[in-house]
Amino acid sequence: MKRPLTRFASQGGGRSSARETIGRVAAGAIAKKILAQVAGVEILAFVSSVREVDLAPEHVDLDTFSMNDVEANIVRCPHAATAEAMIAAIDEVRTRGDSCGGIVTCVCRRVPRGLGAPVFDKLEAELAKAMLSLPATKGFELGSGFSGTRQKGTEHNDAFYMDPAGVLRTRTNRSGGIQGGISNGENIVFRVAFKPTSTISQNQHTVTRAGQETELRARGRHDPCVVPRAVPMVEAMAALVLVDALLQQQQQCMLFDDNGAAVPSPRLLYGNISSLYNPAAAQEALRAAESRQAMSAKQASDAYSES
Amino acid sequence: MKRPLTRFASQGGGRSSARETIGRVAAGAIAKKILAQVAGVEILAFVSSVREVDLAPEHVDLDTFSMNDVEANIVRCPHAATAEAMIAAIDEVRTRGDSCGGIVTCVCRRVPRGLGAPVFDKLEAELAKAMLSLPATKGFELGSGFSGTRQKGTEHNDAFYMDPAGVLRTRTNRSGGIQGGISNGENIVFRVAFKPTSTISQNQHTVTRAGQETELRARGRHDPCVVPRAVPMVEAMAALVLVDALLQQQQQCMLFDDNGAAVPSPRLLYGNISSLYNPAAAQEALRAAESRQAMSAKQASDAYSES
Amino acid sequence: MKRPLTRFASQGGGRSSARETIGRVAAGAIAKKILAQVAGVEILAFVSSVREVDLAPEHVDLDTFSMNDVEANIVRCPHAATAEAMIAAIDEVRTRGDSCGGIVTCVCRRVPRGLGAPVFDKLEAELAKAMLSLPATKGFELGSGFSGTRQKGTEHNDAFYMDPAGVLRTRTNRSGGIQGGISNGENIVFRVAFKPTSTISQNQHTVTRAGQETELRARGRHDPCVVPRAVPMVEAMAALVLVDALLQQQQQCMLFDDNGAAVPSPRLLYGNISSLYNPAAAQEALRAAESRQAMSAKQASDAYSES
Amino acid sequence: MKRPLTRFASQGGGRSSARETIGRVAAGAIAKKILAQVAGVEILAFVSSVREVDLAPEHVDLDTFSMNDVEANIVRCPHAATAEAMIAAIDEVRTRGDSCGGIVTCVCRRVPRGLGAPVFDKLEAELAKAMLSLPATKGFELGSGFSGTRQKGTEHNDAFYMDPAGVLRTRTNRSGGIQGGISNGENIVFRVAFKPTSTISQNQHTVTRAGQETELRARGRHDPCVVPRAVPMVEAMAALVLVDALLQQQQQCMLFDDNGAAVPSPRLLYGNISSLYNPAAAQEALRAAESRQAMSAKQASDAYSES
Repeated sequence: MKRPLTRFASQGGGRSSARETIGRVAAGAIAKKILAQVAGVEILAFVSSVREVDLAPEHVDLDTFSMNDVEANIVRCPHAATAEAMIAAIDEVRTRGDSCGGIVTCVCRRVPRGLGAPVFDKLEAELAKAMLSLPATKGFELGSGFSGTRQKGTEHNDAFYMDPAGVLRTRTNRSGGIQGGISNGENIVFRVAFKPTSTISQNQHTVTRAGQETELRARGRHDPCVVPRAVPMVEAMAALVLVDALLQQQQQCMLFDDNGAAVPSPRLLYGNISSLYNPAAAQEALRAAESRQAMSAKQASDAYSES
Repeated sequence: MKRPLTRFASQGGGRSSARETIGRVAAGAIAKKILAQVAGVEILAFVSSVREVDLAPEHVDLDTFSMNDVEANIVRCPHAATAEAMIAAIDEVRTRGDSCGGIVTCVCRRVPRGLGAPVFDKLEAELAKAMLSLPATKGFELGSGFSGTRQKGTEHNDAFYMDPAGVLRTRTNRSGGIQGGISNGENIVFRVAFKPTSTISQNQHTVTRAGQETELRARGRHDPCVVPRAVPMVEAMAALVLVDALLQQQQQCMLFDDNGAAVPSPRLLYGNISSLYNPAAAQEALRAAESRQAMSAKQASDAYSES
Repeated sequence: MKRPLTRFASQGGGRSSARETIGRVAAGAIAKKILAQVAGVEILAFVSSVREVDLAPEHVDLDTFSMNDVEANIVRCPHAATAEAMIAAIDEVRTRGDSCGGIVTCVCRRVPRGLGAPVFDKLEAELAKAMLSLPATKGFELGSGFSGTRQKGTEHNDAFYMDPAGVLRTRTNRSGGIQGGISNGENIVFRVAFKPTSTISQNQHTVTRAGQETELRARGRHDPCVVPRAVPMVEAMAALVLVDALLQQQQQCMLFDDNGAAVPSPRLLYGNISSLYNPAAAQEALRAAESRQAMSAKQASDAYSES
Repeated sequence: MKRPLTRFASQGGGRSSARETIGRVAAGAIAKKILAQVAGVEILAFVSSVREVDLAPEHVDLDTFSMNDVEANIVRCPHAATAEAMIAAIDEVRTRGDSCGGIVTCVCRRVPRGLGAPVFDKLEAELAKAMLSLPATKGFELGSGFSGTRQKGTEHNDAFYMDPAGVLRTRTNRSGGIQGGISNGENIVFRVAFKPTSTISQNQHTVTRAGQETELRARGRHDPCVVPRAVPMVEAMAALVLVDALLQQQQQCMLFDDNGAAVPSPRLLYGNISSLYNPAAAQEALRAAESRQAMSAKQASDAYSES
């Protein structure tokens, strides 16, 4: 009984393995692309803490750091010296067959204002669910988070002002870009806690399915620290939550304009093949089709594929 | 423009007011009752932190403290000396027209094992969403939470053992009662961060709907600290999440027994009025109906109501 | 036991009473308005059959009949002679304390092309569910429906053509405006069967909750034929299904144009208060606010309400 | 442009092909098995009409016909003479490159009483949606259906009685086994209309994507009549709807007994591995595990697989 169990565990692909998230990352890539094209949204996460090594806030500018900064080292921390300390902290547990945890910070820039919902499906509630659905997560905090509970209202409130371009902003961002369930246009900033990997190469007490106490020691390849690998997962889940909210906003708010008048759209009324309702577009499509027919089969195959 | 705005705000019942949660608390009361009757579940929350006043872990026994302990003081902290310090901390901000935040800890005892789901709808994900859907929340952590990220795997892992009664348990509970999205039978323990109330009696910079910068000072009755009032909200949302999970477990796991055999149930097949399919029950119902008809109209009205 | 039961039944408001649909009709009125403003959709239903009295197809032009035609008589049939025959058929059963059923036909004109989904949530599937969720319904058919099963493919297929305005149409409409789950721009035409009202003023055999056979005779006000009253219910449910589909189309298809380029929208990015991001709009809003402040309180109250 | 289009069509696997339903039939097989084991439910469909050939009601006993009767001929009609007439009717259109439609009748026996919901999600509404989600369907009717609209209430109402075993029944079944959205324990009987297959081997007028009118003639293998193939699809969708309703009933009604007392269940409280909470079960599991370990590796592999 024991041997098959360890043999399976040694392969590292259980139901709660982070490997499960591959589909989320793939879908997140599409969501990121839609968000970027429609609204210029940029979603970037990084490792901000490993064990007791914290990235000091002054060492990363949330408005300007880039994916290159994050990908500059294997621990995905955009500050070289801190990254080195993190790597050393991980190496120390790995050599002992132990593991460690850490924190991922995620920043979503240029998120449209108004995304989210005011009661049960607050935007921060959806983000919290998305993050806690990732394997090994134990906590989520938005903006000021747990440390904000120590502040007074006069210290915590974000003051509104009109920026030089005439756009409503807040001077600080303790809200983390979401107020009352709705995005306010500032950076959405949140942090996700990842516990130490439970699969370690030391003996651990456990119990068999027959109810007998036994010891288990994992074999095979296991990350001593899953946190750097969690960075793309966090970004993907954030993108999926935001694209859902964007589509809902589009659905609920874009049929009518500010004055309550319907926005005219032949595309909404007739579909997306304009040659089927617009004579000029039909002429154009016919010319294109004839030009393709004039090609040799080989030329056509090279030049045109309907899919 | 400014006067109506402050007048409305001074009444304290905006869309994101905690007053919105009254329906959640009412529904939560029913959920708690179902959980208690079916499984003996007990859900108790308390204030564990106000500003910089923390309830030390050794001052509350998560297995044994009672609702009486929580309700013994107005700040809902089950340790008298800490409660007094919290009250003083709140008084200090109130007298200045300021506000403050804090943390609510929630314990769910005797939660059935096996509740939850393994991937997107992990039990901790549902709890995180439920908590972040409450007004003024900025964070959620389960079990070891953010501080657990500083531990090593050897320190963090909960060792399994069989207790004297032959029941699988874990010796520690850093998991907070949920592993891989599924409850494991230990206490579910989580913490929720509440920011300082944003409505304060001091001037704040804001912007009118016409885009003009202005100052706003709230009037009317506002709690300087919403955290004690959040205790029943947190309990209610936890109960709603758990009863949903319980119903799903009942749905998916109770039609067949451990051996895969269907569990026979006349009630499932025939409905819940046994007199409509069971002759003996019909005889009994008839006798009861006749006995009611023998009563005077007044007696019948007193003794019997179908609803 | 028997008396309270008949007394309740005599009031005519049981759980399956058509009175339940009041909320659906109210919501449907809003849905109809959105559909009309965005796309010019018109949804009109009428009674096409009562007992054995059928409205002959040549007596109603589905493209042109109006609500006035339908509301011209109490049986809601847009052909006077047929309406009279229907009224006589209903009167006959009413005088005997009996009841009867009938069929409602619904036409949805100018429905945008492309609404619906191709597999489980076909537009006709959503309509069928909506109609069978109405009390007393026993059947739904779209376009050619049950009688179409008697035709050959050569007779049934709707031939496509380009109309003089260069718009894709079909010469016939046996599809009933939906093909493969998706609206094709032709009139959506469907029929809903309503059984005879079950509450009649004649003795009927039934069984008490105690399992005893008994007789029941309904008292109180009951329609001998619910079908004319069902006309607005059918319209309302059709409107709710179509507005859902319209919102999904808006969500999925209107973020990008035919060429795949994002459609620029300050409103989607910044929200619907343009004075908060557009300096010119802010100037305008300020002037309007000042003009209101210059009014007397009475004038302001008369001239302006923010809601 | 034209040639690739016909080439694709000739392969017969478009988005609305009945081939899409393979996954539904597979899932339906599992649903049927659960329904059969828990409640003895039996779901059987058959072809009741092809073109103008109808199976007379007296030629099939809905209570007793079997799957063998249905599968006795290729047209899936459980009456030999009618089946032969149907086959001849299909052959006639096939030889001309034409197609035809028909009707499938479905009977669900021994469905538990009480399944379904009273307002929006009536059981007949879910069945209607499920059936109209199948390709080529144009209509759904339950019990008396469209022909029932011609009856009077006194003719249509199903009288309740207690059968000799003391079980509530109705003497007739014009309701088709569902009243007010809820199953009543009688056979659920409904009919689904399938239009003639649109893909035929004769020239048809259509329009290219460039808006040009053209003619299309399908090649490849196409059923002239999809109706016999629709029989398992209808059964599968019915099973999926009923198993969903059964699970909801189990969820909502089986935690408490008729008297409102919680039903004790160690399995619900502790999970489905009894050796982890029941010492006797643990002893038994240990003995079984030891016996397996005493086997040779080859024996164990032969005898035991955990999955």
